[in-house]
Amino acid sequence: MTALKRVLLLGGGTGSVALMATPALAAPSLESQYIFNTLSFLMHGFLVMLMAAGFAMLEAGLVRSKNTAAQCLKNIVLYSIAGIMFYVLGYDMLYGGASPYFGGFTFFWSAGEVPAAEILEGGEYSAGSDWFFQMVFVAATASIVSGAVAERAKLWSFFLFVVVLTALIYPIQGSWSWGGGWLSEMGFSDFAGSTIVHSVGGWAALAGCLVIGARKGKYGSDGKINPMPGANLPLATLGTFVLWFGWFGFNGGSQLAMGTMADVSDIGTIYINTNLAAAGGVVVACILTQILYKKIDLTMALNGALAGLVSITAEPLAPTPGLAIIIGAIGGVIVVFAVPLLDKLKVDDVVGAIPVHLFAGIWGTLAVPLSNDGASFGSQIVGIVAVGVFTFVASLVVWFIIKAIIGVRVDEESEMEGLDKADCGMEAYPEFGTGSQRM
Amino acid sequence: MTALKRVLLLGGGTGSVALMATPALAAPSLESQYIFNTLSFLMHGFLVMLMAAGFAMLEAGLVRSKNTAAQCLKNIVLYSIAGIMFYVLGYDMLYGGASPYFGGFTFFWSAGEVPAAEILEGGEYSAGSDWFFQMVFVAATASIVSGAVAERAKLWSFFLFVVVLTALIYPIQGSWSWGGGWLSEMGFSDFAGSTIVHSVGGWAALAGCLVIGARKGKYGSDGKINPMPGANLPLATLGTFVLWFGWFGFNGGSQLAMGTMADVSDIGTIYINTNLAAAGGVVVACILTQILYKKIDLTMALNGALAGLVSITAEPLAPTPGLAIIIGAIGGVIVVFAVPLLDKLKVDDVVGAIPVHLFAGIWGTLAVPLSNDGASFGSQIVGIVAVGVFTFVASLVVWFIIKAIIGVRVDEESEMEGLDKADCGMEAYPEFGTGSQRM
Amino acid sequence: MTALKRVLLLGGGTGSVALMATPALAAPSLESQYIFNTLSFLMHGFLVMLMAAGFAMLEAGLVRSKNTAAQCLKNIVLYSIAGIMFYVLGYDMLYGGASPYFGGFTFFWSAGEVPAAEILEGGEYSAGSDWFFQMVFVAATASIVSGAVAERAKLWSFFLFVVVLTALIYPIQGSWSWGGGWLSEMGFSDFAGSTIVHSVGGWAALAGCLVIGARKGKYGSDGKINPMPGANLPLATLGTFVLWFGWFGFNGGSQLAMGTMADVSDIGTIYINTNLAAAGGVVVACILTQILYKKIDLTMALNGALAGLVSITAEPLAPTPGLAIIIGAIGGVIVVFAVPLLDKLKVDDVVGAIPVHLFAGIWGTLAVPLSNDGASFGSQIVGIVAVGVFTFVASLVVWFIIKAIIGVRVDEESEMEGLDKADCGMEAYPEFGTGSQRM
Repeated sequence: MTALKRVLLLGGGTGSVALMATPALAAPSLESQYIFNTLSFLMHGFLVMLMAAGFAMLEAGLVRSKNTAAQCLKNIVLYSIAGIMFYVLGYDMLYGGASPYFGGFTFFWSAGEVPAAEILEGGEYSAGSDWFFQMVFVAATASIVSGAVAERAKLWSFFLFVVVLTALIYPIQGSWSWGGGWLSEMGFSDFAGSTIVHSVGGWAALAGCLVIGARKGKYGSDGKINPMPGANLPLATLGTFVLWFGWFGFNGGSQLAMGTMADVSDIGTIYINTNLAAAGGVVVACILTQILYKKIDLTMALNGALAGLVSITAEPLAPTPGLAIIIGAIGGVIVVFAVPLLDKLKVDDVVGAIPVHLFAGIWGTLAVPLSNDGASFGSQIVGIVAVGVFTFVASLVVWFIIKAIIGVRVDEESEMEGLDKADCGMEAYPEFGTGSQRM
Repeated sequence: MTALKRVLLLGGGTGSVALMATPALAAPSLESQYIFNTLSFLMHGFLVMLMAAGFAMLEAGLVRSKNTAAQCLKNIVLYSIAGIMFYVLGYDMLYGGASPYFGGFTFFWSAGEVPAAEILEGGEYSAGSDWFFQMVFVAATASIVSGAVAERAKLWSFFLFVVVLTALIYPIQGSWSWGGGWLSEMGFSDFAGSTIVHSVGGWAALAGCLVIGARKGKYGSDGKINPMPGANLPLATLGTFVLWFGWFGFNGGSQLAMGTMADVSDIGTIYINTNLAAAGGVVVACILTQILYKKIDLTMALNGALAGLVSITAEPLAPTPGLAIIIGAIGGVIVVFAVPLLDKLKVDDVVGAIPVHLFAGIWGTLAVPLSNDGASFGSQIVGIVAVGVFTFVASLVVWFIIKAIIGVRVDEESEMEGLDKADCGMEAYPEFGTGSQRM
Repeated sequence: MTALKRVLLLGGGTGSVALMATPALAAPSLESQYIFNTLSFLMHGFLVMLMAAGFAMLEAGLVRSKNTAAQCLKNIVLYSIAGIMFYVLGYDMLYGGASPYFGGFTFFWSAGEVPAAEILEGGEYSAGSDWFFQMVFVAATASIVSGAVAERAKLWSFFLFVVVLTALIYPIQGSWSWGGGWLSEMGFSDFAGSTIVHSVGGWAALAGCLVIGARKGKYGSDGKINPMPGANLPLATLGTFVLWFGWFGFNGGSQLAMGTMADVSDIGTIYINTNLAAAGGVVVACILTQILYKKIDLTMALNGALAGLVSITAEPLAPTPGLAIIIGAIGGVIVVFAVPLLDKLKVDDVVGAIPVHLFAGIWGTLAVPLSNDGASFGSQIVGIVAVGVFTFVASLVVWFIIKAIIGVRVDEESEMEGLDKADCGMEAYPEFGTGSQRM
């Protein structure tokens, strides 16, 4: 870097500013714009893909060692199912635009089938690159569920739920907004999915926790709550950092374009707000747990980061950096108070997925009108409620059907022994500690 | 995201389609194309570089804890040697084009030495960026070997083999196809290296396993096969996810260009097929192990993902998404059946590298003509056999020479004690479990 | 890849060469250049962000298990504080250009406040994207300190130091060079921060180690040095690989532009040199430890990679690949000899941060004139000394003030018990080994 830097910098500008300046400059050729936009989907898409690894490490670190291998398995399988089902039906159900209430029923829709003629109408970017971006997006919803129902859900029952979630539940409600359905008509605004992705995952997780029930011994008959600490906190820390990293793709890629000065500058603003909202969540979670418990709770700090990220996801572009910090910080507050609350209600959410993704997701969606004049609290609330009711009810029904057919939780013996030995026939850490005899 | 999204989407297109549409649009300036193409090598190159971390974590998680530090060491050293040797000779030996059977003998070839005059002939991208991409590529081949011969190979003997593999064996066979040699003349098609990278690593690994022999106690005199489970499965899971992530660079960057609508759209198609092939491998490996063993084997699921990725690497562009899933799924089938088969043959491949990289690599190369009319089964088989015979024989010779000079395996006492203490003077997990007394 | 590849390759070129060729080609439109430049800050910025995860894993792996959760906490909190404080004051203090000795005092400076008029003067890139890049940059300095003072520094005292470091100390000295101050006027050259980032972190760490003192029992009264091995070496290995990966963003993004053939080609050269310098550091550290200790020390190999990276950071563009290997290799030599030296001096640097970042940072800064004619040893030495004296003295003062007010180290009991239980109320690995009773 050189002294010249600052001079260049003064010449820079952010989205809004660049927008004003744009007319003064020659726009890139349409083909150049197409390449930039497509590159944005590809680059941000691979960042989002890595979030699957982030969720896997976060959850693998927060479960007990006797269930760690099963948790790893659930995460790589759910990511695989999500991609396949999104191809089988999900994508067209989300973007097919058949009606205001659901998308299309074209199975195995391939981006390759876009009529060449249509390209000349716009040609903003390759449909395949967008398809890839949306495909990796959907897996996040399923990852949220896997963490909440960890340590007692049956592997195949969970996988079956993921099939329905990624092929129908997520795409149907997504079609209402991102697919151009009734919620978007009504003005509901959710930039990258605080509600459409995170709350949906949270509602599905809550339904799962209620149908499956708490882990044996988690809640004593005397009302005592038994802590079941995660076996590998550095792994959970790694997962949180990887999710934070992937979130630049999650929010930045949702700009859906990078081919103009205004768009690429907006992505810069989105990165800043995403980073600062997470930071706000971390700092507040640390201060609160220090005050409340006289210790800084690492898992709360990690969930504070994630809550901050979820909170800014509905509107990462419009807020000032200062407002982004505040929005994220409030997400951190929510997590610190909601985690013990859920335990009081005997909802056994192993990794804190419901406070982080559902509660902070609602908060983030409500916060949109604070900075985005195009959104109203009224339509935000309608969207939150509509998506919530549909997802929660649909998930309850699916979980109950699965329960009726093959059951949803492992037998008591397997739960005590651990899912690793019972369902995977192996141990995650065969040489460490006391092996499967451990708590 | 907004309702506008779907409208934009309809305007998108995939590679083939965009290709048709291209003439209707102004192409980017030659300099813009140069920047896009170079950026593709840089971006995809750093993704491929991270695969070194993926291999390191995969192997560190699948060996026993007494050999974990040594496995970490092998991986960071092999990556370092690969880069240096590729600079010393490998790059020019691969791309020097001296003859149809080997490249050039220019040592320390630097991209900087490309005559300026030649730029104006093409100027498609910076030679340095391509050089970087190829440099990180070669390390993958060596990583495959390190996993197979883990837990008993001598550190310096392995490093010596890596020197020859990355300076001569890999580049010489690579010159036959990617270097413009006789195999490319013959029509052999291997887009990103199912054979040229993965099978080569697999053949070198097989030669190493045969010369070095199995781990003490792995195969009982009574024909009993003693399982030696990996010490840290979440780490192996992380490694698999990181490899999956890096594979977008591995296959996407092999398009070698991003400066036109057609090229960038093709990269989108490659990402989709790469992701879905891995997903197919995971799902099939889970279903098969459930049927065969009544449990879902996590390590099989992980190797299923990798086998799916290796299988699609020879042709990630031409298949439909559905065919990509099938190609990857067959890779998963191969792994599930080949892993126990190798044990029956008493070939002690610690991490399953040979089934994943060699067998699935052969399958992927054979599958090219299924979707690519430009390829024929005949030329594919010739390429597989020629590369296989050369690599296997050359590797055997090198391993034998190393064995004759300094030996290839640690003494029995060191093997029992573990390579960590014997060769590194430290333990990977000094505080966990029973320390070095453990199995 | 095809045989065509080599032909294309011959058409490539590196920065210098492309520079010569540029006039012959049409430059991209100013808007296209703006997008490419901004994209470079965004893409390289998210790579640098992941370095926070790299430092976290490196340090979490090198501390004892009883302090691992606290180390994870320190890393995610310092990254959060760094971003927030850089927004609160740091950025303008660094780039505000108020005087040759410090930047501006505009608090909460937002990129959005750049006057639109200024864009037309240059418009090279979005100020926000540069701001993001610089924001993730500053955290590295704080990460270096956290590793050195691990296992005994008080959490809140450390956080307080990070506040001052990222809001004042780092930005003030940075303003002297990157901010256009007196050092840049004098010709001091530090491309990506061997001195400005890494040595600064090292000096702050040294001051912290001196004020806080060594860990209990590290140095026996009899002059015996008690090894306190890290609890999780694969995690430390992962951290090193992730840092290596992020370094492509650290050095590549510091080119500050990607919108011309020359700039993007230069980034390619920077990637090559960055990769090879790290490789040189690894190989030399292995050879030296084999000779000195008859074993290959994994932690030395990891620190060798980091020392190689730090060494090339001051000038990653001008050296030939061969010189880059040598510069990195010398970094590796420094680490192998400096680590035991610090122990002799009873400076208890837990992770080897001072040899890697301070000593190798000084070496890298001194090595600039070897390849960059624009730099002189004289001005390099002035820069090293000026930055060193300021940072070390300022850090000492801050550490002493914190010590006087709230103390800087935990009480002896907490140190024995471990910071995890004492300050975080949890264990990093509750089920492994012997729990908190372990050493």
